[in-house]
Amino acid sequence: MATIGFIGLGIMGSPMAVNLARAGHTVTGWNRSPERTEALVEAGGRAAGSIAEAVRDADVVITMLPAAPQVEACAYGEDGILAHAKKGALLIDMSSITPQASVGLARNAAERGIRVLDAPVSGGEAGAVEAVLSIMVGGEAADFEAARPVFEALGKTFVLCGPHGAGQTVKAANQLIVAVNLQACAEAIAFLEKAGIDLDAALEVLNGGLAGSTVLTRKQQNFLHRDYRPGFKLALHHKDMAVVTDTARDLGVVLPAGSLAAQLIASAVARGEGELDHSALLRGVELLSGTAE
Amino acid sequence: MATIGFIGLGIMGSPMAVNLARAGHTVTGWNRSPERTEALVEAGGRAAGSIAEAVRDADVVITMLPAAPQVEACAYGEDGILAHAKKGALLIDMSSITPQASVGLARNAAERGIRVLDAPVSGGEAGAVEAVLSIMVGGEAADFEAARPVFEALGKTFVLCGPHGAGQTVKAANQLIVAVNLQACAEAIAFLEKAGIDLDAALEVLNGGLAGSTVLTRKQQNFLHRDYRPGFKLALHHKDMAVVTDTARDLGVVLPAGSLAAQLIASAVARGEGELDHSALLRGVELLSGTAE
Amino acid sequence: MATIGFIGLGIMGSPMAVNLARAGHTVTGWNRSPERTEALVEAGGRAAGSIAEAVRDADVVITMLPAAPQVEACAYGEDGILAHAKKGALLIDMSSITPQASVGLARNAAERGIRVLDAPVSGGEAGAVEAVLSIMVGGEAADFEAARPVFEALGKTFVLCGPHGAGQTVKAANQLIVAVNLQACAEAIAFLEKAGIDLDAALEVLNGGLAGSTVLTRKQQNFLHRDYRPGFKLALHHKDMAVVTDTARDLGVVLPAGSLAAQLIASAVARGEGELDHSALLRGVELLSGTAE
Amino acid sequence: MATIGFIGLGIMGSPMAVNLARAGHTVTGWNRSPERTEALVEAGGRAAGSIAEAVRDADVVITMLPAAPQVEACAYGEDGILAHAKKGALLIDMSSITPQASVGLARNAAERGIRVLDAPVSGGEAGAVEAVLSIMVGGEAADFEAARPVFEALGKTFVLCGPHGAGQTVKAANQLIVAVNLQACAEAIAFLEKAGIDLDAALEVLNGGLAGSTVLTRKQQNFLHRDYRPGFKLALHHKDMAVVTDTARDLGVVLPAGSLAAQLIASAVARGEGELDHSALLRGVELLSGTAE
Repeated sequence: MATIGFIGLGIMGSPMAVNLARAGHTVTGWNRSPERTEALVEAGGRAAGSIAEAVRDADVVITMLPAAPQVEACAYGEDGILAHAKKGALLIDMSSITPQASVGLARNAAERGIRVLDAPVSGGEAGAVEAVLSIMVGGEAADFEAARPVFEALGKTFVLCGPHGAGQTVKAANQLIVAVNLQACAEAIAFLEKAGIDLDAALEVLNGGLAGSTVLTRKQQNFLHRDYRPGFKLALHHKDMAVVTDTARDLGVVLPAGSLAAQLIASAVARGEGELDHSALLRGVELLSGTAE
Repeated sequence: MATIGFIGLGIMGSPMAVNLARAGHTVTGWNRSPERTEALVEAGGRAAGSIAEAVRDADVVITMLPAAPQVEACAYGEDGILAHAKKGALLIDMSSITPQASVGLARNAAERGIRVLDAPVSGGEAGAVEAVLSIMVGGEAADFEAARPVFEALGKTFVLCGPHGAGQTVKAANQLIVAVNLQACAEAIAFLEKAGIDLDAALEVLNGGLAGSTVLTRKQQNFLHRDYRPGFKLALHHKDMAVVTDTARDLGVVLPAGSLAAQLIASAVARGEGELDHSALLRGVELLSGTAE
Repeated sequence: MATIGFIGLGIMGSPMAVNLARAGHTVTGWNRSPERTEALVEAGGRAAGSIAEAVRDADVVITMLPAAPQVEACAYGEDGILAHAKKGALLIDMSSITPQASVGLARNAAERGIRVLDAPVSGGEAGAVEAVLSIMVGGEAADFEAARPVFEALGKTFVLCGPHGAGQTVKAANQLIVAVNLQACAEAIAFLEKAGIDLDAALEVLNGGLAGSTVLTRKQQNFLHRDYRPGFKLALHHKDMAVVTDTARDLGVVLPAGSLAAQLIASAVARGEGELDHSALLRGVELLSGTAE
Repeated sequence: MATIGFIGLGIMGSPMAVNLARAGHTVTGWNRSPERTEALVEAGGRAAGSIAEAVRDADVVITMLPAAPQVEACAYGEDGILAHAKKGALLIDMSSITPQASVGLARNAAERGIRVLDAPVSGGEAGAVEAVLSIMVGGEAADFEAARPVFEALGKTFVLCGPHGAGQTVKAANQLIVAVNLQACAEAIAFLEKAGIDLDAALEVLNGGLAGSTVLTRKQQNFLHRDYRPGFKLALHHKDMAVVTDTARDLGVVLPAGSLAAQLIASAVARGEGELDHSALLRGVELLSGTAE
């Protein structure tokens, strides 16, 4: 069992830290708003008053933060991880940031003798609570092996995809597919509704054939009832699509459908729908088709 | 057990007729090229020398043909189904044609006392052979109930979606989602490859998260090995996308991603790739990204 | 000077017939709503009570009608042009219809000894009134020469582009460019406005550089004042984009920007804006960007 | 007449400096490769051995450089403009960089008592040689008035569009329209060619109607003869489209056609065509349509 410092106890981080504590790890958590540590403490973990306190004795430090600026602030600050973690500690950054930021973090940490994995996740709040996340990992094979007990407490699928940054690149590919397939399903639903088809019947049979997908299954109720409580917010998907399109530009890969989906997500955010679940892409199709309420 | 006349013993129709014969139905098959009847005869069915002969004694007539012109030729010809089927027979057209053509067929058949269901399928050759097709049905509820034993021998999921033409409309929605999601997966794979990611690892973890889909599972080997033997030909998907975009235009539904995918499929066909499996959309992404061989 | 039967005295046809009469031609006009003949009569022309009466003595018959069904009704009906025009007459169809419909009209007319040119126009109501239309002509060179005095009374630029249907094909290309460039200008204006730029200044300098175009000049006031009185209606441009995309599909030409513009025009029509000028594509950009009123 | 230091004597900068010298201004030019100063010297200007020497006595300093890094190196370096120009000098940056970089330059220069205008241009090499550039200016009105004699020697149209950065924003809008309209024209030409239309005739009549534009006029020969010698390179347009799409993302403006054009330009660059004129977007349409050689 590992001694773990857990930085970032938000919607995702809190249940993840809880699952680690329940699995028997010694978990000390820190969050900017200290009231978010309660669930962890109830599950047997400890609350730290500072990042330094959370990471000082840890073999493994986990960060689960909204974006690169927060990761970099927590890593590089005076009270930060690199200044206070033990030499030889393993820093697992499970936030979704750019591949370049992950590569930079690994290089900077190496200078302090700290090893790094990038390990962003897919699965949302439900996946975090139920410990069935998909975890996409970049870094050294030995570090991946060392992290295995941690990943086992958090997810169902976890795979080493390549060197530092590779986890973030795969996460970007994940968000690309999810965005485009959400749009596909939204267009199909608007099409079926305007044709007067029984949607419950149609979705059942669509899911049984080549059109079936996790998006269509997990978001079916959102689509059918126009229930756009998140889930995963369009504003976050918008941020992720910037990673996708900027990385693709750097790589010289052309993404006709991906860049269209990025525009349609940007449109939803510009229209003030950033706090809705990303299944609300259906609203955009309805707006374009003149059937939005 | 029903007496069935089966018209059209192609890649899909032949294994479907075989499965019906094996399930105990009395099946008489007809095909324009008569040598295609062999498999059915081996499975215990009979070969007919004409459509008239195939349908004369049938309670159920099934058509499984490439497109509307063939369906209409077989239905309306002098030697055709409407001229020779029994009054009260049930005609199940499992071809993929336009909703309008299905509505027209039902109306014309009704004048001869023949009932019609439109019942296009999803699942490809493998789904036909393994009898796990998804079947999307339009027509009367009583006729759907009457067809149940037939559908049970052919597929895993079969659902009545609405009145005449509704099966075709749902099939169009199916082809829309499949086209866009194939394009999404193709873009993600080109993105991952150019980033130097281990594709086997990446696809495993992608399939485990929200990006997972039947397309990603069933077409994984096609994508990984650039093995574009059909499966389902781009030329047929091109024909289906014309149904999708024309129907959407009539309905007044806007399909930004669907019409983009239709253009990219049209491009593959224009470049001479119509006979490849539709997973060959990956070639288009590679072409645009300068990495095609 | 020619004896001309003019069929269709709408927004475009009426000023065209007037210009022909003023140029000294003998013009007999017919319109489904007979009150539309007044302007022509004032200009020295005559009103006919039937198509037969309008075309019986004409050397040249001109049709200027909304779409193919109206052209075909006027041409092929019992009281129609082919039944009543003189052998050797020249039928100039200036309506915008599909290239295929034009080819069919030419073939059918030839069987009655009547020659045909397809000669659709660009320039809108203002171009018709001021006799500065661009005229895109398909047909035989000798017939084009014979029609020269007619074209000189109607337009500024008129060019023989190829055989029967070629005029319609060039008109389709015209509508393709106009649609996409309108969308480009609309996006640029939304971009400049949200950036707080002085639009009058910006449009002046844009028009002076490589971004300059007839669309930007002629539609500048529409864009600046959100004055969407037609001009040219989105509903008609929608019909024309169907000709563009269907012809492109038949030809095997891929139009990524053209098909996107077609979707955005379809969206405007679906949202109930079909009666607005096509510069109202700006409303769609504002809707997507959350700045529509 | 002004004393001018001119930094950057490339394809655009060299003829611009020559035009200023010919108009009677005292011009001292500097270029990283010193052999590029010859044309200026022949026109009566002087060559400087360093930036410091070029700007020391200047009332006006002009920069005409490829991108923001070069502008910032020349402005902020130890031997740079801000370190050596006179207090009260006017720095006119005619390079195309991001609006943000222009705002930053103005702020940093102000601390040294140096005034700044951003003044990017449209018109290409021909426009620079013939002194008919369009100049889009951002900054203070008084500085714009002071720069008027300079602009008169360089261009035909020059307009103050707003505060610092506004010139760059309008330039971005210019590049957006040009990219999309080039794509529109390319699609129309591919469409006409595949339909067998006489292109010379078609382009004449298209240019006479609402489809007419500066792009269609100036690039006509490039399109007709597949002559893709630049002109304006796709690689530079690619860089500019990154400014367009990034700025639009910051502004919250959705650019469906603009982002599609950005992808198609990125595709051309990825395929190794970055050194061709941007009219080579036609090659992309031909590639997608299977008609590329």
